[in-house]
Amino acid sequence: MSGAISRNDTGLAARVLVAEALGTALLVAVVVGSGIMAERLAGGNVGLALLANALATGAGLYVLISVFAPISGAEFNPVVTMAGWLRGTHDARGALARIAAQGLGGIAGTALAHAMFGLPLLAASTTARTGAPLWIAEVVATFGLLFTILRLVRARSSAIPTAVALYITAAYWFTASTSFANPAVTLARAFTPTFAGIAPADVPMFVLAQIAGALAALLLDGWFAEREPGVAVGPSA
Amino acid sequence: MSGAISRNDTGLAARVLVAEALGTALLVAVVVGSGIMAERLAGGNVGLALLANALATGAGLYVLISVFAPISGAEFNPVVTMAGWLRGTHDARGALARIAAQGLGGIAGTALAHAMFGLPLLAASTTARTGAPLWIAEVVATFGLLFTILRLVRARSSAIPTAVALYITAAYWFTASTSFANPAVTLARAFTPTFAGIAPADVPMFVLAQIAGALAALLLDGWFAEREPGVAVGPSA
Amino acid sequence: MSGAISRNDTGLAARVLVAEALGTALLVAVVVGSGIMAERLAGGNVGLALLANALATGAGLYVLISVFAPISGAEFNPVVTMAGWLRGTHDARGALARIAAQGLGGIAGTALAHAMFGLPLLAASTTARTGAPLWIAEVVATFGLLFTILRLVRARSSAIPTAVALYITAAYWFTASTSFANPAVTLARAFTPTFAGIAPADVPMFVLAQIAGALAALLLDGWFAEREPGVAVGPSA
Amino acid sequence: MSGAISRNDTGLAARVLVAEALGTALLVAVVVGSGIMAERLAGGNVGLALLANALATGAGLYVLISVFAPISGAEFNPVVTMAGWLRGTHDARGALARIAAQGLGGIAGTALAHAMFGLPLLAASTTARTGAPLWIAEVVATFGLLFTILRLVRARSSAIPTAVALYITAAYWFTASTSFANPAVTLARAFTPTFAGIAPADVPMFVLAQIAGALAALLLDGWFAEREPGVAVGPSA
Repeated sequence: MSGAISRNDTGLAARVLVAEALGTALLVAVVVGSGIMAERLAGGNVGLALLANALATGAGLYVLISVFAPISGAEFNPVVTMAGWLRGTHDARGALARIAAQGLGGIAGTALAHAMFGLPLLAASTTARTGAPLWIAEVVATFGLLFTILRLVRARSSAIPTAVALYITAAYWFTASTSFANPAVTLARAFTPTFAGIAPADVPMFVLAQIAGALAALLLDGWFAEREPGVAVGPSA
Repeated sequence: MSGAISRNDTGLAARVLVAEALGTALLVAVVVGSGIMAERLAGGNVGLALLANALATGAGLYVLISVFAPISGAEFNPVVTMAGWLRGTHDARGALARIAAQGLGGIAGTALAHAMFGLPLLAASTTARTGAPLWIAEVVATFGLLFTILRLVRARSSAIPTAVALYITAAYWFTASTSFANPAVTLARAFTPTFAGIAPADVPMFVLAQIAGALAALLLDGWFAEREPGVAVGPSA
Repeated sequence: MSGAISRNDTGLAARVLVAEALGTALLVAVVVGSGIMAERLAGGNVGLALLANALATGAGLYVLISVFAPISGAEFNPVVTMAGWLRGTHDARGALARIAAQGLGGIAGTALAHAMFGLPLLAASTTARTGAPLWIAEVVATFGLLFTILRLVRARSSAIPTAVALYITAAYWFTASTSFANPAVTLARAFTPTFAGIAPADVPMFVLAQIAGALAALLLDGWFAEREPGVAVGPSA
Repeated sequence: MSGAISRNDTGLAARVLVAEALGTALLVAVVVGSGIMAERLAGGNVGLALLANALATGAGLYVLISVFAPISGAEFNPVVTMAGWLRGTHDARGALARIAAQGLGGIAGTALAHAMFGLPLLAASTTARTGAPLWIAEVVATFGLLFTILRLVRARSSAIPTAVALYITAAYWFTASTSFANPAVTLARAFTPTFAGIAPADVPMFVLAQIAGALAALLLDGWFAEREPGVAVGPSA
């Protein structure tokens, strides 16, 4: 309320938003950059390229979450931020600011990857990723990611960097969509005509599927939480 | 005994059974889904496909065990549940309910993987997996898995998610059967005509071998436990 | 001294020796078995085969060390046991019994791997592994393994399962010999005509190199320990 | 000040410098050695070779940092030491001595790798690695490495071995330069005509880019630290 506190709040907001933007940028740089490198070196074997892409992304996620979690919670993902808003951790204004930072950071990450590989900074993808199987896959992928985070926040938050990293590594392979599971990353990947790209026209349905998966995770996490032993409320408990 | 407690018990049972069904479904979705993706992308190199399949399964197991252990113990495996029953952790009725949940969940997991990849939800496998070497391999694979779990439950249970994940990753490669080691997963894999499938006729011998391996692990774990220093009982100790 | 204590001691010895034999057997089964699987599936790409072999071995080591460390220290390696004897942790008789258990267990592990893959239980390797570069590599490989163990025993023993697993995974690749680094495993690998084999005639020089590497690690570890701050002794400290 | 303390200081310095030289030597031996092995076995698939190289390097880094951190801080990298000097952890003389140890150790590491693979101990690389994209990549790679270390030193230093290992594994793939990120390792890699080499003429720009990346990480880490809640100083806080 005082001028000093307001300045502190502003300072806090700046570091949180810079952390969310930078972290999302680096996450996208890892996804897009390792995809470019993998495609160039894999000699046409898409399986080998995806393996390198998946391992690099998982390794990068562990690092980024470990580094940025103490600053901003290392959300890097609008549906994670949305979950925090629905659960009351963030207010609407804070959530929107975070989501904007993630969106801008993600696009900057695509540009950064392109700069490192000598490509035009931004260009539209032409990779079609559409159809019911891929939308189901995105629902499943995002459900799994959010459910993992929501459960571990309750029970064992120190495992989150490892669990999210390994979840995404696995999800590159077990979901037909290679698991985007993140609207900011999906948007950023629309700006790369390389291995990790997605045609801009296919982004909206991916994002809708991701929101659906996140909401399902929130519901199921709540269902389990209500039935936690020793957490029962009311006269009959 | 009171109505309130009965309702609590019912609530507890529901969350445990849902957790076992959902966890087994997702485990099978990882195994089958990553197998489909791997086969499609590996350009005919079965070694590369198995490597992706093994890494995805190990990564997925770490996540699933970490997430579901606080709810249901994250058993996902009828022979693990059987061991709990033989050790007195579960009563017969509870064990059977868990096993049913695992079995149904596993089959749902195959259907989920097929849905994500645009395949018919369930179809019989035609992959023959039979013969003494594979049966020996399943005995060894399941012995190793159960022995790992039984020993770490005693000494260092926080290592179980990592140890089980890495055990299965290794066992994909060092056992000739690629280590099914789980009757519910074996049954579920009979319903996929893809990379991870097993012909239905070959399931019973795999399950028998898995039970044999689990019993061997129980015996050896007990043998070591009896000889634990400082745990001796009786007048001569 | 009493009959009761003697019986306890005998019980202790049995469980230690069974643990060392079984652990070494399973370690060799992982090395040899994953080598057979990798060679069969890699489509002639030796690099891919070695990658699968290295990852499976590292994953298996983490599990085996975690499981057996509370019983026997999970040595599985005659030069590790030798280091324990030189440091006074084992007496000569105990060290020899452990080494015998490791040697017999290792050969049983080769037979187990062969049984799982439908091969004759034991057969001599014809893979020549000889020459100064490989001997230097074995000195380096074993020095690194022992130095890692000796230092972490002092400072952070909970990291040993992970560190040994990752050390061997790396050493498969950075040493020209693919890092045997273990006389019992080297002997056991002389009995397999598959990917992981070593011609029996080449075993003695590998073992000599391994002993040399282990002694170098003991010396250097001692040199560092003498210079540890706060551990200085004598009047001038 | 007393003779006893001087002697202790000298002892301390010797163990620190030996640790930095030996650790850097082994790090380079892992990078160069696994590169040679990978190139020999990968059957012309550069992607597979880089995957093995990256996994071996990451695994080796975890071990080397875990082992040497209690002795010398496991810096192994002149720009890490430079950051310690700029932050006041090292004085100029100590920093220069560490950097000299890292430089000499690194070159010895190249010679050690060559000895293990039967190659001439040192020979110049002819691999051109030059141009703006690669320089940008080295800035990014070193920024990320230093930022990771600087943040985790503040918040969660026990995660550093894992985080640095996974960072480098990812950075092999997401940076166009495969992430040298270390002047001592860059210099040492100028002396190998194999997979991991860099032409001597290209070393200076890489080192300049690495210094720039490190300085950027120091600035940003400081920016975040100033805005840490509860760390504010002065009357308005």
